[in-house]
Amino acid sequence: MTWRASISYFNFMAFRHSQVSVVADSVNISGQSNAIQFKVPECRLSDDLGLLFENQKFSDVTLSVSGREFQAHKAILAARSPVFAAMFEHEMEERKHNRVEITDIDHEVLREMLRFIYTGKATNLEKMADDLLAAADKYALERLKVMCEEALCTNLSIENAADILILADLHSADQLKAQSIDFINTHATDVMETAGWKSMIQSHPHLIAEAFRALATQQIPPIGPPRKRVKQS
Amino acid sequence: MTWRASISYFNFMAFRHSQVSVVADSVNISGQSNAIQFKVPECRLSDDLGLLFENQKFSDVTLSVSGREFQAHKAILAARSPVFAAMFEHEMEERKHNRVEITDIDHEVLREMLRFIYTGKATNLEKMADDLLAAADKYALERLKVMCEEALCTNLSIENAADILILADLHSADQLKAQSIDFINTHATDVMETAGWKSMIQSHPHLIAEAFRALATQQIPPIGPPRKRVKQS
Repeated sequence: MTWRASISYFNFMAFRHSQVSVVADSVNISGQSNAIQFKVPECRLSDDLGLLFENQKFSDVTLSVSGREFQAHKAILAARSPVFAAMFEHEMEERKHNRVEITDIDHEVLREMLRFIYTGKATNLEKMADDLLAAADKYALERLKVMCEEALCTNLSIENAADILILADLHSADQLKAQSIDFINTHATDVMETAGWKSMIQSHPHLIAEAFRALATQQIPPIGPPRKRVKQS
Repeated sequence: MTWRASISYFNFMAFRHSQVSVVADSVNISGQSNAIQFKVPECRLSDDLGLLFENQKFSDVTLSVSGREFQAHKAILAARSPVFAAMFEHEMEERKHNRVEITDIDHEVLREMLRFIYTGKATNLEKMADDLLAAADKYALERLKVMCEEALCTNLSIENAADILILADLHSADQLKAQSIDFINTHATDVMETAGWKSMIQSHPHLIAEAFRALATQQIPPIGPPRKRVKQS
């Protein structure tokens, strides 16, 4: 006898990273239920495009950086980055010559950014989150940018807090900026002693002012309405 | 005061289909823990490529079917289907003329197959699972094929069971074939009365034999070694 389950509805369970990714239990027309297990292969979109990035087949544009080159695909770069889209869709040098010269991004950082463009994933964040944040900001890759912000936030320290705040401000990384200010204010006594903080007073006084505003707002006791707002109905 | 959690490890929770997709709780260096919530934008790889399929920018190949045309990208077709890869990588007509003539797939079915190639998703399975199974088999899209098998299996009925078995056999859809045989044997008395079954006796006698073998194996009581095999060590 075939084993029959008593479940009377579809039950799709997707286990990522497992071979068997979908389990369906269905009822047959006689009212009995069959346990039907289909082994649906995992979605390979990201993997397939990762291989395409590696093997460069049918590439139609060259990205040149520090004397090294990447062969890439205009369609994919433009589909993923509005900056590449503008570059290839308008009458720019890059469109005419199918070549993009990049001078302000390191070769390894560009490789990581391109891998993200093709696959949606970034695997070496911990090593180059600061440079990658700059690259992601330049090419308007919002998801990659926040992934870098998150990686940088987990490595916030007394020593680097001022530099991270400057970096976040420079690249409009709002979430990292808020976390850096919060970190600085939580460890104010220690951070104020660092070279980074002392340098920032001269180079980025508006950030000192922002940190001050945040600290002052935290410390002033509530006046008038309670701070925990009641939702308007 | 900033709210602080007491959780002492990273806790990444990805909620698909929600705006806020990652929540990280991290410990700072002083041993206090900060509740850090980063709003990481969802991965848009599938959506971005879906838009690329719609807007056809930088396409380099034309797929022609029943007088209608699709503009597509060799790189993506080849990255996703080994059949397209062979077509574009070797000295075939399609490579020389950047044009593929398709005569055996309906226009709407081809559109659905191409959307799967670009996005990894298929949204109209219930309407065209049979034709799409044939197309997926032709272009070696294994995941799409099993998705079609699953959709067809949920619609198995007394009336269509014989036809579905023939279809599954024709396209080497092994999981659907096993389920069709199981369904036929569970409803043998009714299925044997259908036109489909009677026609199959003439047209595909080997499938009748396969169904018979499955039924016989189920019904014969175990002789000799137990049916639940013990693994050889």
